[in-house]
Amino acid sequence: MAMRDLPRTIELSEDGTATILVDQRLLPERLEMLRVTTWQEMVALIKDLAVRGAPALGVAGACALAVWAANQVPAPARADVDAFLRELGEVTERVAAARPTAVNLSWGARRAQAAARGAIRDGGDVAAARAAIAREARAIRDEDEAACRMIGANGAALLPRGARVLTHCNAGSLATAFYGTALGVIYAAFEQGKIERVFADETRPVGQGARLTAWELARVGVPVTLQCDDMAASLMAEGGVDAVVVGADRICANGDVANKIGTYGLAVLAAHHGIPFYVAAPSSTIDATLATGALIPIEQRDPSELGVCLPAGVDVRNPAFDVTPAALVSAIITERGVWRAPYAFGAADGGAAGADALH
Amino acid sequence: MAMRDLPRTIELSEDGTATILVDQRLLPERLEMLRVTTWQEMVALIKDLAVRGAPALGVAGACALAVWAANQVPAPARADVDAFLRELGEVTERVAAARPTAVNLSWGARRAQAAARGAIRDGGDVAAARAAIAREARAIRDEDEAACRMIGANGAALLPRGARVLTHCNAGSLATAFYGTALGVIYAAFEQGKIERVFADETRPVGQGARLTAWELARVGVPVTLQCDDMAASLMAEGGVDAVVVGADRICANGDVANKIGTYGLAVLAAHHGIPFYVAAPSSTIDATLATGALIPIEQRDPSELGVCLPAGVDVRNPAFDVTPAALVSAIITERGVWRAPYAFGAADGGAAGADALH
Repeated sequence: MAMRDLPRTIELSEDGTATILVDQRLLPERLEMLRVTTWQEMVALIKDLAVRGAPALGVAGACALAVWAANQVPAPARADVDAFLRELGEVTERVAAARPTAVNLSWGARRAQAAARGAIRDGGDVAAARAAIAREARAIRDEDEAACRMIGANGAALLPRGARVLTHCNAGSLATAFYGTALGVIYAAFEQGKIERVFADETRPVGQGARLTAWELARVGVPVTLQCDDMAASLMAEGGVDAVVVGADRICANGDVANKIGTYGLAVLAAHHGIPFYVAAPSSTIDATLATGALIPIEQRDPSELGVCLPAGVDVRNPAFDVTPAALVSAIITERGVWRAPYAFGAADGGAAGADALH
Repeated sequence: MAMRDLPRTIELSEDGTATILVDQRLLPERLEMLRVTTWQEMVALIKDLAVRGAPALGVAGACALAVWAANQVPAPARADVDAFLRELGEVTERVAAARPTAVNLSWGARRAQAAARGAIRDGGDVAAARAAIAREARAIRDEDEAACRMIGANGAALLPRGARVLTHCNAGSLATAFYGTALGVIYAAFEQGKIERVFADETRPVGQGARLTAWELARVGVPVTLQCDDMAASLMAEGGVDAVVVGADRICANGDVANKIGTYGLAVLAAHHGIPFYVAAPSSTIDATLATGALIPIEQRDPSELGVCLPAGVDVRNPAFDVTPAALVSAIITERGVWRAPYAFGAADGGAAGADALH
């Protein structure tokens, strides 16, 4: 059991005509790779959470465009450039809108679109544009894995030897191209022999902790214990947690963090017990246009997601995210370094000011 | 919709040969009453959570002895007194041990046992002892409902008009003979027009909040919203909670409270948000022999209870209860009054010292 036993979450096939991805809907019962050759199927899989996690969705956005471009029939000639660009624009919008709240998805799609436009602006034909999209999809994937490994290295340095780490949801390899953000920190520390055990919160209602985090940690050989979300406090009270490490869906200029529902409660509990609370995310997660977390819209999801029988007259509250105030965040770990309060992120996404110069 | 639409949770049949109880494993899909005539089946049902909740377990403990005594074949004569008492002792121990954390189960069984011994000490025969056990089982049930109604009245006085109350697990009518402890407070306040809405935590892994609390509140007509356990913190942050009211499985001399797993975390969150945190329980829940919560045994339950696929190598932590330190408890509401820190309960189970003289 080792990192090599984890699949690459999502990538372009060698010939560039297909996206190969883990079908996360089937985990942990079975690991199955999907081979997808149409952008419409990519959109359907994104909506259905076969692929999820902000960084992985960035790769998915670019891959959706790549499989569209690669499977154009007949192979387009120079004359088709305008039609190609027009259709590229339409496909980009449709892919970007598959999950409107995931900023990485549209970011990945638009990066691939820009690469195609650049190739044509530089005098290339449609074949060149198609190659540029494939290159961009591979670059996004490679950059994501590289960022995760840097996040891992930066974060592992913060953990003590023999660390017992609590995490929530899945900010793991499955949420990224490979390696993970919060779990990237854990994997890096594990490779350094520093991890005694990881506690994975179930993460209701969707159960990403139970279904994905526990699965991937066990597959790598990291000792992992699953617990229900309402058990975290008692574990902390028993002295069983040395650090909490979670991912982030969006980080504001002031360091407020939007992440999976339940994250905020863990931050309050960690503070109460004097346990460090770390957020691990690529710097692309930092949205300096938002001054504070109060500006982050919180997605309310369908009551059916709880999967329970609802007697007549019972309402359901099902917010997908919550906001953790910066004051409760011990450090924010990105691929560029480790940031501590007072956080003041600028337009340059986690630029130098304020970061520990670790790397 | 009203209180009369709720069933009596558990009671002895009119002829004393059977325990009639709600099969709580089937809720909220359907309401079905069980008729149980052996103590072994009672123990199995207690272990399987067909009946649960500390006060209801008190009734269950006595009822288990009652159905044992009533169904002795052949009907025991005077000569069998020693054998009867010996077997009574064995059955009492077996029933008391069915679940370790709630003191009420063994308390109910031992009260019934003591009643039988008393009848025999007073010159009665086995038939008299049997009658004494049945009387005691009925008395415990009646006392429990009366206590719940007093708890309700005492607690309702603490809630503001338009109260939005958060509760965890089921300390409802279904956890008692009738009316409930934490939900008794809510029902009494609702009858006074003071309740705007109740938020019910799902309460994983067994889901007593989703399955039982939401069901019984809706049946009575109390506006109720179900949420996952990891959503409580964000609701508090939104200013959506005026008070937290929970039940208790055991209360120590110093006011430390053992209750359903997740209770402690809510208490920490309530303190963080300046929200009063109330514990409502009959004074029989007070175990003054335990100085602090550190002495309360915490039941660890089976991993299968989580009902999730567990890949090889994934451990499970499944404590059924946690301990909330007295410092986080704003008040303890019993049928005798409202208690506030510093708590110092004596052998007389919530005797006068320290209680507000409300009633």
